[in-house]
Amino acid sequence: MLSRIDLMHFYEKYSPGIMASSEQDTSKSGSSSGSNGPLAKLIIQQCLSARLQVKPPSDDEEAAYVEVERGIVVYVCFLKGASKATVEKMVKTVLTIRLSEKDTKLASVSDLPGNVLIVPQATLGGKAKGKMMQYHSNIAKDQGLELYTLFCHMCQTGLSSKGPSQEAGTTVKNGTYGNRQVLSIVTNGPFTHIFEF
Amino acid sequence: MLSRIDLMHFYEKYSPGIMASSEQDTSKSGSSSGSNGPLAKLIIQQCLSARLQVKPPSDDEEAAYVEVERGIVVYVCFLKGASKATVEKMVKTVLTIRLSEKDTKLASVSDLPGNVLIVPQATLGGKAKGKMMQYHSNIAKDQGLELYTLFCHMCQTGLSSKGPSQEAGTTVKNGTYGNRQVLSIVTNGPFTHIFEF
Repeated sequence: MLSRIDLMHFYEKYSPGIMASSEQDTSKSGSSSGSNGPLAKLIIQQCLSARLQVKPPSDDEEAAYVEVERGIVVYVCFLKGASKATVEKMVKTVLTIRLSEKDTKLASVSDLPGNVLIVPQATLGGKAKGKMMQYHSNIAKDQGLELYTLFCHMCQTGLSSKGPSQEAGTTVKNGTYGNRQVLSIVTNGPFTHIFEF
Repeated sequence: MLSRIDLMHFYEKYSPGIMASSEQDTSKSGSSSGSNGPLAKLIIQQCLSARLQVKPPSDDEEAAYVEVERGIVVYVCFLKGASKATVEKMVKTVLTIRLSEKDTKLASVSDLPGNVLIVPQATLGGKAKGKMMQYHSNIAKDQGLELYTLFCHMCQTGLSSKGPSQEAGTTVKNGTYGNRQVLSIVTNGPFTHIFEF
């Protein structure tokens, strides 16, 4: 088990240092960052159930977890230049893309209806250099937290605005940005998909 | 639970139809396929344990599974133009890239030493078109099976050729190509990384 200091140490690996603020204006609506790379990455896996730690154990308290039943696990990473407009595209994809089996067809998580577990995963922004990964494209931590918070909120409101989902008691749960994501997942086939925005 | 016919139905979604044989010469050593896209994709997640179905249940027999303890789960997808040379690069990355925590540093799965669970995952080749995924870049099934078999074999021999791994009893296990990958994974943080070749 790593200590909190170790956790911060690990987290710092996945976040670049101080960046020019002009690069980090999250209010801009354009999707171009001036570079050719993506602004954000998602991985979506189907799950029968999944459990994620949202608070590590401390001297005083046990660890806290969130759990979802059938639905999708969404790993999220924001890169430099990501904006509110990027988040809107991502949320639309998460809620409408047809990846889940329903009878003999494929349905979106909204139509299933299914649950959503959002896992912040800064490591998706890594690029191999020799035997090590580098994370130079990752967004600064404070900007990433802002977009992540918006992403979770929009998934929540987007899913609950769909009639059947709310009636069926489906939920959106999410991990704590910057924490180690202690995750367990049970699938009947993850059908893993990668998305870039 | 889907029947075997349904499984084949799903699998066919992730594999293109008949292709020009010149595109599919796996003996060529060059990495260029004439298109700009990648030739293969990998996702690597850290695990404390993972379990994968390698044979679905039948009327006569129960399902068969493989399991690994601490190490990595490697999701593999081959795209059009992938060759033996692509596989060699992929295996080198899997065995040498430093993603696993060892004391306060990062180590490769060979140095950990850890186990490897290989999961064929044709869905990684998908691209969103509207609300549906398309898999036009995926390699033909027979070629994919050939490269997948080579990939598993090279991971096996590569890991066991490293001294500490063999002594520590680490193993490489793999899913059945073309099957539904019924997978469960327990992590202390998946630290998910995406690789393109």
